[in-house]
Amino acid sequence: MTTNSKDMNGSFIEEQNAPQNDPRAFRRALGQFATGVTVVTTDTPQGPVGMAVNSFAAVSLDPPLVSWSIRNESKNLKAFAEGEHFAVSVLADDQVDACSVFGRPQEGQFSEIPWTKSAHGDPLLDQAIAHFECTLEEAHLSGDHHILIGRVHSFTRFSGDPLLFSQGQYKVAVEHPQLANTAASGSSSNGVSNTTDEPLFVSLLKSTEQYLSEQFGEYRDELGLDVAETRVINLLDLSPSNPAQLAAGALMRVDAIEDTLSDLDAKGITSKNASGLYELTAKGWQTRAALLASATGFNDRMLELVDPKDLETTRQVLMTLLTS
Amino acid sequence: MTTNSKDMNGSFIEEQNAPQNDPRAFRRALGQFATGVTVVTTDTPQGPVGMAVNSFAAVSLDPPLVSWSIRNESKNLKAFAEGEHFAVSVLADDQVDACSVFGRPQEGQFSEIPWTKSAHGDPLLDQAIAHFECTLEEAHLSGDHHILIGRVHSFTRFSGDPLLFSQGQYKVAVEHPQLANTAASGSSSNGVSNTTDEPLFVSLLKSTEQYLSEQFGEYRDELGLDVAETRVINLLDLSPSNPAQLAAGALMRVDAIEDTLSDLDAKGITSKNASGLYELTAKGWQTRAALLASATGFNDRMLELVDPKDLETTRQVLMTLLTS
Repeated sequence: MTTNSKDMNGSFIEEQNAPQNDPRAFRRALGQFATGVTVVTTDTPQGPVGMAVNSFAAVSLDPPLVSWSIRNESKNLKAFAEGEHFAVSVLADDQVDACSVFGRPQEGQFSEIPWTKSAHGDPLLDQAIAHFECTLEEAHLSGDHHILIGRVHSFTRFSGDPLLFSQGQYKVAVEHPQLANTAASGSSSNGVSNTTDEPLFVSLLKSTEQYLSEQFGEYRDELGLDVAETRVINLLDLSPSNPAQLAAGALMRVDAIEDTLSDLDAKGITSKNASGLYELTAKGWQTRAALLASATGFNDRMLELVDPKDLETTRQVLMTLLTS
Repeated sequence: MTTNSKDMNGSFIEEQNAPQNDPRAFRRALGQFATGVTVVTTDTPQGPVGMAVNSFAAVSLDPPLVSWSIRNESKNLKAFAEGEHFAVSVLADDQVDACSVFGRPQEGQFSEIPWTKSAHGDPLLDQAIAHFECTLEEAHLSGDHHILIGRVHSFTRFSGDPLLFSQGQYKVAVEHPQLANTAASGSSSNGVSNTTDEPLFVSLLKSTEQYLSEQFGEYRDELGLDVAETRVINLLDLSPSNPAQLAAGALMRVDAIEDTLSDLDAKGITSKNASGLYELTAKGWQTRAALLASATGFNDRMLELVDPKDLETTRQVLMTLLTS
């Protein structure tokens, strides 16, 4: 049962089902819970192994325990579930590359990303925002995964902000708009926000961006497209691509791209060509044109509100500040 | 061992230790892993119980299993660990209130927040972005917590964006700046971004805001303050407050506020007054003045780059768009 109807409270039901009836939709529902991204590593007699993991969780403070889970079919299962120790690196927002390298099994992963050895010999990724050095406490079979519970012997917290994985996409975290709105309402008389950690002008930029972004989302909704679909259509406008290329361009995980392509195929917007690359169909090109028209309509509406000359001044001021 | 020195790779080590030597610092390190926020509920003969939980994790797709953990000392342990079913609501970015209501045990929680009953009778919070209806598969003692594993019988995914909990604060997720930067560099000739889902002007606002925000962060770093400390100082400038008031004003969790106050007390910036409220000390007022001077210096630097008249035009354009 896939619906797109308004429920009693004004939020839209996108999908509703029993997991076994639609495993992909179940995975999308699980993706509503945002997470950070970690790379978990361990040293083995055959050399270090590592994988990107977003099922990390804090379990216990005393004793200090953390958990994560690994597929029973993973080729790394034995190394982790029968190993004695592992290390966790929590990735910073500028480490999408590390996440891609460790996102799927491949040769030479540890020659591409800088790292140092933990006391147990497990790789700790440089530039991460936290390191946890653990011994394996327990490997607990749970469905098609094992939950691994580690005891933390040493931790390091670094400066920096986290990389996020949310709704199939890599994202970053920003201050909650409830704070920014308080600031933009001008509660302070000295031109400096009392309730945020930033000058008023920065809060004003943030509030305006979030507001316009939401408004543009409504145009996209009218076309029956979600953010991921829009992003894939825009990338396919540039050239036919395979899922890995689209994942890199859209900062999405390959499995999320494959889901999106499957949906776009079903809608008749994309198809696989003879070379095995995805491309826009005739209907796909029409959809792309409609997206462009929406963006133009959005710009036109802004110009109705604001003098074109003032909007141009604003553009120039922002570009000057951005390139300062 | 608490340090604040640059490591070999240019990121700052904030804290490094064994967990038992500094449990609070360990909790802060765990807080580097960002999460969504859920409210987990169950129906009992004495009525429904619920609590805010951010240890939720997807475990298995087939069979469909999820996990979360609960303190052994929680008064809700028996209801959940010996119950037969529970429900998980993944909170949307505008549900900070629901999170606060279920963040600590209190009477009347279910009369403050709208909800509906699951098939098992467990409350599902309205306006959430996902619901999972589960039966308890296993309750697994792990240190000072139990890990509860649930089998998902039904899921619903709603439209909307997630509330985040990261580094002690409630936040929201936005598009990764790597995407926005591609757009702002103007790779598209038609004025509409090819690689994001938004018009170029919105991407430009986002890039500028993120860039200025980072720059201002450097001023704050020079004062030896983090975002949370700055926010608490700014709130105490308005009036002496208790931790719950500060948590509400700063959109932080009470435990994170208490950590921050403890650090500020140690630095001589805040102290508890005779009424049990926290207030700025003489040194605290000096620090507040230094923060204001930083913000003023930041504004001055912007005015060196941009004609004051153009900056004022920009402010007016942004306010017009924001209030449209």
